Amino acid sequence: MGKKTDDLQRALVEMQLAAAHSGERTVVIFEGRDTAGKDGAIKRLTEHLSVRLTRVVALPKPSDRERTQWYFQRYVPHLPAAGELVIFNRSWYNRAGVEVVMGFSTTAEQAEFLRDAPDFERMLVESGIRLVKLWLDISKDEQAHRLEKRRNDPLKQLKVSDLDKVAEAKWDAYTAARDTMLTRTHTPLAPWTCIRADDKHEARTAILRHLLHRTAPADIAHDVPLPDPDILFPFEAEALSDGRLER
Amino acid sequence: MGKKTDDLQRALVEMQLAAAHSGERTVVIFEGRDTAGKDGAIKRLTEHLSVRLTRVVALPKPSDRERTQWYFQRYVPHLPAAGELVIFNRSWYNRAGVEVVMGFSTTAEQAEFLRDAPDFERMLVESGIRLVKLWLDISKDEQAHRLEKRRNDPLKQLKVSDLDKVAEAKWDAYTAARDTMLTRTHTPLAPWTCIRADDKHEARTAILRHLLHRTAPADIAHDVPLPDPDILFPFEAEALSDGRLER
Amino acid sequence: MGKKTDDLQRALVEMQLAAAHSGERTVVIFEGRDTAGKDGAIKRLTEHLSVRLTRVVALPKPSDRERTQWYFQRYVPHLPAAGELVIFNRSWYNRAGVEVVMGFSTTAEQAEFLRDAPDFERMLVESGIRLVKLWLDISKDEQAHRLEKRRNDPLKQLKVSDLDKVAEAKWDAYTAARDTMLTRTHTPLAPWTCIRADDKHEARTAILRHLLHRTAPADIAHDVPLPDPDILFPFEAEALSDGRLER
Amino acid sequence: MGKKTDDLQRALVEMQLAAAHSGERTVVIFEGRDTAGKDGAIKRLTEHLSVRLTRVVALPKPSDRERTQWYFQRYVPHLPAAGELVIFNRSWYNRAGVEVVMGFSTTAEQAEFLRDAPDFERMLVESGIRLVKLWLDISKDEQAHRLEKRRNDPLKQLKVSDLDKVAEAKWDAYTAARDTMLTRTHTPLAPWTCIRADDKHEARTAILRHLLHRTAPADIAHDVPLPDPDILFPFEAEALSDGRLER
Repeated sequence: MGKKTDDLQRALVEMQLAAAHSGERTVVIFEGRDTAGKDGAIKRLTEHLSVRLTRVVALPKPSDRERTQWYFQRYVPHLPAAGELVIFNRSWYNRAGVEVVMGFSTTAEQAEFLRDAPDFERMLVESGIRLVKLWLDISKDEQAHRLEKRRNDPLKQLKVSDLDKVAEAKWDAYTAARDTMLTRTHTPLAPWTCIRADDKHEARTAILRHLLHRTAPADIAHDVPLPDPDILFPFEAEALSDGRLER
Repeated sequence: MGKKTDDLQRALVEMQLAAAHSGERTVVIFEGRDTAGKDGAIKRLTEHLSVRLTRVVALPKPSDRERTQWYFQRYVPHLPAAGELVIFNRSWYNRAGVEVVMGFSTTAEQAEFLRDAPDFERMLVESGIRLVKLWLDISKDEQAHRLEKRRNDPLKQLKVSDLDKVAEAKWDAYTAARDTMLTRTHTPLAPWTCIRADDKHEARTAILRHLLHRTAPADIAHDVPLPDPDILFPFEAEALSDGRLER
Repeated sequence: MGKKTDDLQRALVEMQLAAAHSGERTVVIFEGRDTAGKDGAIKRLTEHLSVRLTRVVALPKPSDRERTQWYFQRYVPHLPAAGELVIFNRSWYNRAGVEVVMGFSTTAEQAEFLRDAPDFERMLVESGIRLVKLWLDISKDEQAHRLEKRRNDPLKQLKVSDLDKVAEAKWDAYTAARDTMLTRTHTPLAPWTCIRADDKHEARTAILRHLLHRTAPADIAHDVPLPDPDILFPFEAEALSDGRLER
Repeated sequence: MGKKTDDLQRALVEMQLAAAHSGERTVVIFEGRDTAGKDGAIKRLTEHLSVRLTRVVALPKPSDRERTQWYFQRYVPHLPAAGELVIFNRSWYNRAGVEVVMGFSTTAEQAEFLRDAPDFERMLVESGIRLVKLWLDISKDEQAHRLEKRRNDPLKQLKVSDLDKVAEAKWDAYTAARDTMLTRTHTPLAPWTCIRADDKHEARTAILRHLLHRTAPADIAHDVPLPDPDILFPFEAEALSDGRLER
């Protein structure tokens, strides 16, 4: 681990010490296609953080009872108390991604979600929760490469799923779902940040820097370099048409 | 119990049988000043309903941990699953009532609540939950009378609290809080219904009739008389100034 | 409501006032065959109690996820905090009753439950929770009579279920399950109390008296008459063979 | 990462694939003095496991409400559903460790816990949950060394706490608490396994091997070397007196 990474990790530690003191609450959402690098980025982020102040939430599929409840109901109990950082490894945005592509919910439910998410998030943000929404973007070639590697790596067999094949076969459907999701749920209070994730190391570095600038007190963020704007950038709806997000 | 009351109870039973079949979910909120008759009306309402499909939620005061969380977080886990009726005996509206009068939260938190409640409720309603919000309105004289009776009734000692004295002493502050609350959170999707509650029997009959018209299938509601419009009526902001709600 | 009933209700109120002050926690379990009168007795018991200190728990059937968890897991979150009274309308004893008769769980799971319940309850009791376990016993004729009445009463249609027919047809299987359950889970720390429930009024009076003697401070219990020993009595295993419980 | 470690990680992945298929549930408890290496060992263990089937539970301090409830109540909701692995980073054993040394609970509560834990765990095990209890044992010198290092490492500042000073100052009190805890809660169904943790690498390797032998199907465990018996060994009460655990 180089000097620079060390500096970032140190700043994250300082950020959480400050939050423990101030009571600041933070939610970070990691979304992105399969193999985009969510798990790895989360491991890097939590590496030196407090196990008691940090919760990584990766919910199993809903129970039969939960499926009949208000959609956000199973996420709400995991929201942070004072000083806590909650990281969602996939989140309520399932309804705008995999569920759209696979038809796991109705189009009415999906439309409702796109209407609700901005209001739901607005309430969280206005209640004082810092909400960071990250979209890890991976190219089609890189995904194909990673899926292939995954299939043959005995250490990654828990990541292999029936959805993998779909990830490739339905690349365009996922793209369309992503574009709709980002466009509809990118709001001034809860903006999406996009990260080009083909290079894992660059992506992680950019994410940590971004988080620090978004959530750390000024004196801590001050010395943190800005993330590379070619790697991490605010979502812009107009970028979709000229292919900026997609490469 | 007369023939008429019996008819209403029978219709409520049919309504819940229909909900058990259709999966319809309902939330009823009972709000009103101290002694307005919330507990009694809820008992009447639930008299013949299924203990397994009906939940009456009367939350204790928040824990120290809950106090640092998103305000709606402790209410959300109680929302209904398929076929369920959830009755809130006081609800999230605490923040717009007793907390305002007693200063249990900051004015910023109270302002935030008034902004959030309509969005929160809109989501519930659009997700298919039938939401009925009832304001039981009692006159100053009748409250004074009931508080006096309560103080001297050994069977009502659990209802006596330090807030009773405040209820009278701060009558006007409660009125102001109520007016703000009703005005700000009365929305097309989640309207407030007001009930003159000085006459308990009339109030309860009107509430049951109203619930049936709001939540029962047409064939059940068809034979239910409409509630007396002098007893139960939709909230109207303009009514406040001419003293209609207040008598 | 007569003078005597009034006295009991007053004493219950005093008991809960004392618990609110001392922090005393209480759990009351109501078990018994279908139509034995659990719902009605609970209504009588809670009539004047605090809605905020009292919780009646009647759980829906377990979700698919819950079915794979530790059996007691879905009951534990409902256990009381300081000053609270929690009433289970049917409880973990489902596994020793309806599940046995209907084959809703395996005999191994049922055997495990009979082994576990005494230990589970011992822990609750030793942690300071007052645990009262009530078996409402009804005769075959009275049950037949009530089921018949229920079928024809529009107000009781929510209580009619497919299990009603089984209640009669499998009377002996229920008896055997009951005898095993009472014999195996009647312990010095968590004894069963049996109530002859054919006469509803007598049964309810006896239950309230018993609760007061079991859970109220001495100065409150002092004036409460003892329950009629022909109506309410401690379970005795030997009584089963000579038909005492069964009439 | 060498070939051997890789083999272990691969076997862990296979174990979890098998559990996902069979529904096998596992609970692993990590206990040990401050700096004994719990966090690091858990990171190694979960490195390639499924984020959706694995939960690491590190509870914050109890809320004011939780403090009045049954002691195990706040742990129970985290127990595993089908196929899940739940890892407790510190656990209900807090009551037998830090609470004893620091006086955070009464001696009566601590005595009750020592009585209850074996019964509580017996129920979990007999319900089919595989329960593995690990005590990471560290020498006084090594702890002093690690605490010193921690104090000066900016990356470890979230681990520094007021309890650190106590860890050293009250070494003997912690030893006494540990001896009581291990002796009283080491049962045939839920035995303690001790790990000499002064050498982190050796300790982690031994833990992974042990877990595999305890929880993996025979065909997976078959090729896994046994843990070094000088590093990992079953607790034996008689060992305490001759200083075996303590070096």
